[in-house]
Parts: sequence; structure tokens; C-alpha cells
Amino acid sequence: MNTILLNCDIGESLGPWTMGNDSEVMPYLDCANIACGFHASDPQTMRATVALAARHNVTIGAHPAYPDLVGFGRRSMACSADEIVALMLYQIGALDGICRAQGTRVKYVKPHGALYNDMMSDLRILRAVFLAVSRYDADLRLMVMASKDNRAALALSAEYGVPVWFEAFADRAYTASGHLLSRNLPGAVHHDHETIVRQALTLARGHALIASDGSALQLQADTLCVHGDNPSALAAVQEIYQALGRELAA
Amino acid sequence: MNTILLNCDIGESLGPWTMGNDSEVMPYLDCANIACGFHASDPQTMRATVALAARHNVTIGAHPAYPDLVGFGRRSMACSADEIVALMLYQIGALDGICRAQGTRVKYVKPHGALYNDMMSDLRILRAVFLAVSRYDADLRLMVMASKDNRAALALSAEYGVPVWFEAFADRAYTASGHLLSRNLPGAVHHDHETIVRQALTLARGHALIASDGSALQLQADTLCVHGDNPSALAAVQEIYQALGRELAA
Amino acid sequence: MNTILLNCDIGESLGPWTMGNDSEVMPYLDCANIACGFHASDPQTMRATVALAARHNVTIGAHPAYPDLVGFGRRSMACSADEIVALMLYQIGALDGICRAQGTRVKYVKPHGALYNDMMSDLRILRAVFLAVSRYDADLRLMVMASKDNRAALALSAEYGVPVWFEAFADRAYTASGHLLSRNLPGAVHHDHETIVRQALTLARGHALIASDGSALQLQADTLCVHGDNPSALAAVQEIYQALGRELAA
Amino acid sequence: MNTILLNCDIGESLGPWTMGNDSEVMPYLDCANIACGFHASDPQTMRATVALAARHNVTIGAHPAYPDLVGFGRRSMACSADEIVALMLYQIGALDGICRAQGTRVKYVKPHGALYNDMMSDLRILRAVFLAVSRYDADLRLMVMASKDNRAALALSAEYGVPVWFEAFADRAYTASGHLLSRNLPGAVHHDHETIVRQALTLARGHALIASDGSALQLQADTLCVHGDNPSALAAVQEIYQALGRELAA
Repeated sequence: MNTILLNCDIGESLGPWTMGNDSEVMPYLDCANIACGFHASDPQTMRATVALAARHNVTIGAHPAYPDLVGFGRRSMACSADEIVALMLYQIGALDGICRAQGTRVKYVKPHGALYNDMMSDLRILRAVFLAVSRYDADLRLMVMASKDNRAALALSAEYGVPVWFEAFADRAYTASGHLLSRNLPGAVHHDHETIVRQALTLARGHALIASDGSALQLQADTLCVHGDNPSALAAVQEIYQALGRELAA
Repeated sequence: MNTILLNCDIGESLGPWTMGNDSEVMPYLDCANIACGFHASDPQTMRATVALAARHNVTIGAHPAYPDLVGFGRRSMACSADEIVALMLYQIGALDGICRAQGTRVKYVKPHGALYNDMMSDLRILRAVFLAVSRYDADLRLMVMASKDNRAALALSAEYGVPVWFEAFADRAYTASGHLLSRNLPGAVHHDHETIVRQALTLARGHALIASDGSALQLQADTLCVHGDNPSALAAVQEIYQALGRELAA
Repeated sequence: MNTILLNCDIGESLGPWTMGNDSEVMPYLDCANIACGFHASDPQTMRATVALAARHNVTIGAHPAYPDLVGFGRRSMACSADEIVALMLYQIGALDGICRAQGTRVKYVKPHGALYNDMMSDLRILRAVFLAVSRYDADLRLMVMASKDNRAALALSAEYGVPVWFEAFADRAYTASGHLLSRNLPGAVHHDHETIVRQALTLARGHALIASDGSALQLQADTLCVHGDNPSALAAVQEIYQALGRELAA
Repeated sequence: MNTILLNCDIGESLGPWTMGNDSEVMPYLDCANIACGFHASDPQTMRATVALAARHNVTIGAHPAYPDLVGFGRRSMACSADEIVALMLYQIGALDGICRAQGTRVKYVKPHGALYNDMMSDLRILRAVFLAVSRYDADLRLMVMASKDNRAALALSAEYGVPVWFEAFADRAYTASGHLLSRNLPGAVHHDHETIVRQALTLARGHALIASDGSALQLQADTLCVHGDNPSALAAVQEIYQALGRELAA
């Protein structure tokens, strides 16, 4: 079995509003995608989140987003490539500043919500994202969505010298072309833990998934996106963790 | 004559709104206090401002503020020490991220507006400011206001290992205790360029000023705060520059 | 027993972040202090909150605050009287716009958090608050804190023609001067439901409370502030409701 | 000649940042589209802008926008119909609150920037805009862009009982289908005042324009959009005003 990294969106509380169960899910994670204040979080929350990740030796990633707290960064905004480069550098730098003050560093970047979706469907935006990451620090990785055809991401990875991690989902159905089945369609989200764990293992073993039309779908998955924002999701993370043969440090 | 550094608040435009004449004043500056998005500026403006400062070899400082665009960071906010540390790390990091992407770095920090005033009148806040700067990077300097009695700042400078630059003003009258005369009082602001240039030279030579009550006031001034936001201020900067025996690079 | 109104801060969710149990506490309220987007809430949350209040025939009040989402309006900001008038008119109008679209109206105003505290301790701010309310609509009431000496509020009420509701707390200890005992002191907050209900009844009957120094404290209480943000608080509201001899509509 | 109303975007300053020459252009306007704090302006600026409009007897319109100060409301955001209704009610109400406090009222609504463009190209959004205006107040008008085919707007106007004003531009070239020629194409914006005034008169007389392909384009224009944000634009407004046979009140 390959080593597949478990990543999770983390640190999405805001001022007095809490979201997620960060302290409960953190022990099971390899990578924490930490919100940077544009779709969620604030400077104090970011400090506490970085401290929590560091305590568990979890690799810290910046989770930059469009500037939209009320919409949680889920509403696409018509930003220019220059605007995207700038807002990413700002957010990565802000989180990295908070990391440096605690003796750690941002190690990778995963765009959030609508920015993530937009970069996967618009090459102009994907290029801006690669440019921002490469400009910030040559050692940063970028997390992008695994698809049936990863050539665009791989070409930009080579062009900008930014290594990528391909991300897959254990709790979502895929279309034959390797995209997530729309949430509006039945069966788009797996709720059954057995199904979720089986899909996680299939991805970790590098085997093909069965797409929504029944065809085989081979995805390169370096990392699995898990969720910790409700008890059922948290339990699923623990089951995946166990199925992967991992054990929590004593 | 000592070398006295000319510093100026820079990069205070916001989206479509412009403020100041950054490109005209930049050639005369040693230090640019660059807004970080909380009282002014935005990621794109910050990128352009860093590029302008770098082009003129001007030392870049972070100019963090309370989160208050509408009030331009001039309204004091009752923040805890922890909140101040966090918002400073966030803003310094964001600007430094944009600097790194251009091959340069933030070299010092000057708090803005109400945060600057609050740190000079409240030791608890001054301590939080020193803590934030020291945590971010041991090599950063902090710009604080020169006063008749600098012992508190010097003690914290030693405690946190953060070197300070003391700042004085050429266009403001001082009280006998070394504070700025309130803007509500007559004569608080010098408009006459001859007076401004004379005060700049007095400070640069390390001589005593005449305070508002006629007494002699000795200030340690490592840097002079100048302004570039209107034609008269810009002309005053040029006259100070010349009087200090400086010459623009060809 | 007097009729004492039960009021509660309501509608303090924000985008994807929920706060409080609005639908559970609403049936027990007379007055809902609805957040207006500056310390909490957003336009959609405001629409849903107004609809909920209207469904339960609860009187709608605007709950304006300083512009500070991250600090939840709890950090005092040094605003001028003009700024306070303007930000109150903006927030009252925004909520009233949402009310009008549902065939209802804002009937009163209760400033939130630091703005509430500041108006009770600074006459200049209290005057600005009265001015804003009177300018908006001559029929609006203002909710202010009942104190041992209500003369300042009563004088401004007469001067501006704005009727007031005096508010008291069933779950807080009072000083002899009629202020809330600081939360930093032991016994400041009552957690025992029996104590809370007893204090509610004492206030409703117009009897004197026992202040923290043992003296009798007579407060004029037109309304009690209750909370619905946790199960215990919600249970306390229900017990107060019952003790006051109220019954939910079938 | 028909009476054609001159409308202008007004009140787009923000805190310390000024934009436009509101006091100079106001005397020539019939209708002021006043920013509501989402793309520009703030509560104090709104108060001053309403006072200025009222002083000149200029009809006040709300100019609601997507929540995007840095992008000045010019970046399209993927908002749901419900979100658009809510953010419009909020902004209309906020401005109307400030109007009521000065004895005046919002009389019409003109969406700003990307929201304006989106409503003209997406019927779902146009419907949400009509719904918001009708819900707020049955007497409000809505300003929409005149096109060659106004049937969609007229049908929604009838369905929601919201009268419309069709808006045309004197300084922009039109395509044969009645859309504005893209700013990326040569000749899209008229800079020559003679051309601008001639187009204004053509529209006011109800005559056909010559579209960019040379064909005749008949537009129903109830109002002309003018600009006051630079000296040339201001001079053009004055020339249009004179050409329309208007005279400033003594």
C-alpha cells in the first residue's frame, strides 16, 4: 500500500464562532489546510490553529480563498490573474508569519472552495495559482485535485518548479472523466462509512475506482481529503486511519 | 551631522481609491512604512508598493494597524495584548510574503495611527508590540516615538532583543515632556517650510529643540517622519533632503 | 406583578457559522434584539431571523454595534458622536428594510456589546445614541440599562422624545450603585437557576434586589435580558417564563 | 424633446479616501445613485451624500452592489437569487434609514457594477433584483439598461409591479443588438465632447443611434448616465445639461 496523506480543512472558526472539531481530528492528520482569514479564521484563531498542528507534528498548509467571509469563500469571484497572485501571496505570508513566530513554516498550499474549483476548471487561474506558489517559496508544494488527465497540472508543475500533491476524495462519487459527481445528483456523497473506507483503501492501493457510469477510473492520489466537522465525519476519519494501518502515537 | 533616516507612510491606497504620491516621494526616502491591509491597502496595492520601494532601494517596514478601514486605523480599539500580537504577526507576515515573492524582506515595523499612539501611552500595549516583533524575526527593528524619557522603550528593547529606531517629527511642535502638542492647540503643526527644515536639521545634528513652553528639549532622533500626501508636504521633503546634504542618485 | 418583557440577543449567526438556538428561545420572548451585520449576522441571516420573530409575534428591535465581526462588537472603539449616529442609522435602516419587505417594522433599538457599555458610561455617547434613534423614527424606543440613578437617561429621553425601556439582568449580581458586578469578581454571574428565577421575580414585582455589599437596590426594570445560547440558559428562560405565569400559545 | 433624466453614481468615497466631485456635479443631476457601503461609502459618507442630494432636490436612488470594497463591486460574484434579494434589501434599507433621518426617502434603485451587468445578462438575477425592489416598497422604481429588446425587463416590471427607467449612455458606442461595445475594442468610449453631446441629444429626442456596425439602433432612454469623476467628465455633463435646454436654479 502506498503512503497516502490525510489532509483536512482546519482552523475555520472566526472570532466567537466555532466550526469543526479541530482538536479531535488533528491527531489523525498528516496535513492541515489552515484558513488564512479571507473565507474564515482571524489572526488569533490562526495562532491557536498553528500551535495545535505543531503540537501534533502535522504538516501545515495555507488554505487561501477569495475574500468572502459571509459566503465562506464558496462563491466564485471574477478575479484577474494578478489579483489571484496577490491575494494568495498575502494569505500565505500571513499564515507563514504566524508559523515563523512559533518556529514552524507553511509547507504547502491548497486553495479553498470556489478558488479551488475555479483553478481546476480554468487554466488561467491554475497558472496564477502556480505562479503565486512558486514566487512565494521554491520549496512549497501545491495540492490540486487528481483527475483522469493530470497533464495540465503536471505541465505547470514542471514549468514553475512547484511539486504537486494530487488529492482524491473517499466520500464522493466520481464521473467517468474523473470529476466529482455534482452534489445535486443522487449518490454524489457517500454517507456509509464502509463505502468511504473501501474507497480510501482503493485509492491508497493505487487501484481503479468505479465511476458513476460503471467504468474504471484510475486516479493518482497522493492525499485524501477528510473532514472533521461533525461526529460522523470524525468517526470516518478514525476508521480510514485504522484501515490504513496507522496508529496514533502513544 | 548624524545620519538621520527619512521615513514615510506609504502604500495607503485601497482598491480604486488612491492616496498619497508614493512614486514622487519614494526617491527621497530611506524607510517606507507600508500599509498591510488593515487600515489601508490591499494585496495588489501592496505588491505594487513593495516593487516601488525595491526599485528605489528603500528599506521596507511593515505598518500594521487595528482592523478598521473606514476609520483608517485612527480609532483606538480595546484589543487585548494577545489580539495585538496576533494582528501584528498576521500583517507583518502578509507584507513579508509579498516582499519574499520579490526577493526582498520586511526590515522593521512601525505601528500605525491609533496603535502607535496606544503603544506610546500604554506599557501593556508597547510590550505586546515588542513581543510580536521579536517573535516574528529576531532581526526586525521597531520604530517608536522619541520622547524625553525613552527608558521604557529601551528596557523593552533590551528585554526582547529588538533594536529600536527613535522617530521624531520636523513639522510638529513638542511639549516640554517630549510629547507632540495636541493638534487642537495653536501652533501644533508647522506649515512654514523654513521652520520645518530648521527643526529637521536641529534633530539631525542632535541639538535640543525648543518645546512649546520655551524649554530646551533633547530628543534622540534616529529617523524623521515625513509626508508625501500633498504638494506642499512633498516640497518640504525635498527641502529637508537637500538641507541634509543628500543627493538623488543620477 | 408588573408585566416585564423578556428580551434576548438574537440572529447572531454569520454566514456558515451558527450561534445560539434562536428557534428554541424565540417562543418565550417578547422582544428580539436582532444583530444588524456589524458585530454578527448578514443579510440572509437577518431575513431568516426577522421571519422567525414575526412568526412568533415577537417585537423586533435593532441591535446595532461597532463595526467589528472578529471581536463580536465587544471591543470598544473610539468613535466620534457623528460616527455613532451614522453607524446606528445605517444598521437600524438595514434591519428595518428587511422588516418592511416582510410587512413588519423595527420597534426599538438596543445597542450591542461595547457600544451598550460605552453609552452607559459616557454621556456623550448616550446622547449620540438618543439622537440617532430620534432621527430615525419618533416612534422607536431605546433600551438602556436600569441603574440606581436613571436621571441622565430620563433627561435625554425627554429631550429627544424617545421613550426608554429599562433593562435588568436576572443572572448577574449588582453593585450597590446599580452596576453589574465585574465578571472578574466571584459571584458576578448566577448559574443556579433558582437564584436566577428568584431575581427575575423580584425585578418583575418591583421589589428591591440585594446588592453585592448587602444593601437594598431598587431598580426600575421594564425588561429582563435573557440568553438562549446554551441548553442551561434556555432552560432558565423557560423557568423564568413559567414563574412569571406565562403560557405559550397552543 | 422628451425629458430625459441625468443620473450619476455618487457618494463613492470611503472613509479617508475621496472619489469623484460630488458637490460639483450634483447641481446638474436629476437622480443620484448613492453607494450603500458594499462597493464604496460608509455610514458617515452616506449621510453627507444624502444631505448634498437633498440640498439640490436631486432624487435619491440606492446603488447596491456585491460585497467587495477592494474590487469596487466590479467583480462578479456567484450569488444565489436569495443572497441577491437579501443584500439588496439590506443596502436599500440602510440608505433609506439615513434618508428618513433627514426627512427624505429612497425613490429608486440602480444596481452597481458587476451586479448591474449580471442582471442584464442573467434573467435569474434580473428577477431577484425585481423581487427585492418590489418587496422593499411598491413605489420604488428600478433603473435598468435600455436595450434593443426590452421585453424581459418590461415583463418583469409588469409581473412585480415595479416601474422601470431605461438608462442609456451618451459616451459609449453600442453594438447593433443594443449592448455596449466592449471597452477592449477601439471606439468603445467617446472622449470627444461634441460626440457625447450629440448622442445625448439623439437619445433625448428619441431618435435612433448609429450602432458600431452602421445600423440604426432605436433605444428607449428615460435617463442618461453621466459621470463626475474627472474634470473632462464634469465639463461634458455641463454641456449636455445646456444642450438639453436646462438652466441651473439661480
